[in-house]
Amino acid sequence: MSTLEKLARQIFDSQPFTRHLGASLESVGPDSAEIALAVTDDLTQQHGFAHGGIISYLADNAMAFAGGLALGGDALMAEFKINFVRPAVGGRLIARARTTALSKRQAVCQGKVFAVSGDGAETLCAIAQGTVVAASTEK
Amino acid sequence: MSTLEKLARQIFDSQPFTRHLGASLESVGPDSAEIALAVTDDLTQQHGFAHGGIISYLADNAMAFAGGLALGGDALMAEFKINFVRPAVGGRLIARARTTALSKRQAVCQGKVFAVSGDGAETLCAIAQGTVVAASTEK
Amino acid sequence: MSTLEKLARQIFDSQPFTRHLGASLESVGPDSAEIALAVTDDLTQQHGFAHGGIISYLADNAMAFAGGLALGGDALMAEFKINFVRPAVGGRLIARARTTALSKRQAVCQGKVFAVSGDGAETLCAIAQGTVVAASTEK
Amino acid sequence: MSTLEKLARQIFDSQPFTRHLGASLESVGPDSAEIALAVTDDLTQQHGFAHGGIISYLADNAMAFAGGLALGGDALMAEFKINFVRPAVGGRLIARARTTALSKRQAVCQGKVFAVSGDGAETLCAIAQGTVVAASTEK
Repeated sequence: MSTLEKLARQIFDSQPFTRHLGASLESVGPDSAEIALAVTDDLTQQHGFAHGGIISYLADNAMAFAGGLALGGDALMAEFKINFVRPAVGGRLIARARTTALSKRQAVCQGKVFAVSGDGAETLCAIAQGTVVAASTEK
Repeated sequence: MSTLEKLARQIFDSQPFTRHLGASLESVGPDSAEIALAVTDDLTQQHGFAHGGIISYLADNAMAFAGGLALGGDALMAEFKINFVRPAVGGRLIARARTTALSKRQAVCQGKVFAVSGDGAETLCAIAQGTVVAASTEK
Repeated sequence: MSTLEKLARQIFDSQPFTRHLGASLESVGPDSAEIALAVTDDLTQQHGFAHGGIISYLADNAMAFAGGLALGGDALMAEFKINFVRPAVGGRLIARARTTALSKRQAVCQGKVFAVSGDGAETLCAIAQGTVVAASTEK
Repeated sequence: MSTLEKLARQIFDSQPFTRHLGASLESVGPDSAEIALAVTDDLTQQHGFAHGGIISYLADNAMAFAGGLALGGDALMAEFKINFVRPAVGGRLIARARTTALSKRQAVCQGKVFAVSGDGAETLCAIAQGTVVAASTEK
């Protein structure tokens, strides 16, 4: 495991909300990250789908880690946009994000959130794009 | 309480994730909504601030209710954008959203999320804009 | 006219695309700007409305000036989001933007674009939100 | 040339602003489009780069055509978001967009704008994501 991956895992594990939800950092690359989450009943909205806030958490966090890995350290989302394209039905969600453009202090990232059915089939639920800035950056 | 406010409160109370977080629908208007949340340790990120996913949940849900009230029934976020402008420090967050433009099937809403300190002072933490569509709308 | 307003007008007048379109900087404030444009036939799309690119230009530029004024100097849009809420019908458009959150190096701005009819009535056509960064900022 | 491509080219050619700028519809696919533009001095901003409004026009229009092709007819941008990642230096810009998620009445599209140097090398300048709705859709 690279030093950077170790740092990413350490930061991920130190997020109380992430531990509370039970999300897992499935994989990381030099500028990408994948986060999975089992959707318990507690995480749904009025129609039984995963709540938009949960989808947003996954997109936000996957992009933050993808960007942080590209930037080489702790990082924060400055902003993002998300389109919800299908209800997130089913027991498991997976968010994949990658860095699309990198400069010294910021990474523009794109992410997708998929609902995973019992047989592993994935359905695209949300598409996101956002800006990650190095945490040390004084805004 | 108007019929529409009753419906809004009923939908709000029927969101398992909202109950799980312990958020409250502070007030609703004909095209606006205000949601408050006590930030427990479980809802923070690695620096002790409220997690971006929590801020996003609040903005998303406040806009969804503001738009749903304007549209006159159950509604869904189609998409939104959020800028995080300051860390959400402190024990309580409040999200306020209103409908800025309304047509038959969609409402474009704007929202802000504030951190509220012990003495009630509010600090703007996030600014959001998004599209709410009537739930009956077949996309 | 303040030194900052002078700088804003000088920058505005030095934008070849702005001069080409014939847009005018109607007014500026310490963190706000208003830009107007006469919509000639050349600036329309296939249905005779002002082209989305023109609406976007106005929102982008009004926010860039609002943010630049708040930041105190030359500035650039880092990103923005825009919702088109009604076709831009009529001969004149006006974009108004203001800074909603300011930090040392960036301003988060919001803007609206209105179509103005012959009798001066304004119709909201687009709503935007974006990030302006000081031009000297090395990304 | 397919019937749909013919329709796309006919709509493209019927946009006065597009003709005014001199943009060309380089290629279209079943759910994608590519638009190119020679950046004359008239289309620049105060630092000599292509104006953000021009970059936005290209992203907006390429996504509108990508989505319209996927939806099978005339279409409109409902909203989009764009990140400007590098100044658009050089004489030619190219925007490429594709449909990432499609439903009956809307397409969520992603696009990129590149600056093309004299030797054909491309530099990514902007990244965009937005919603295209069928023009017949009553909002």
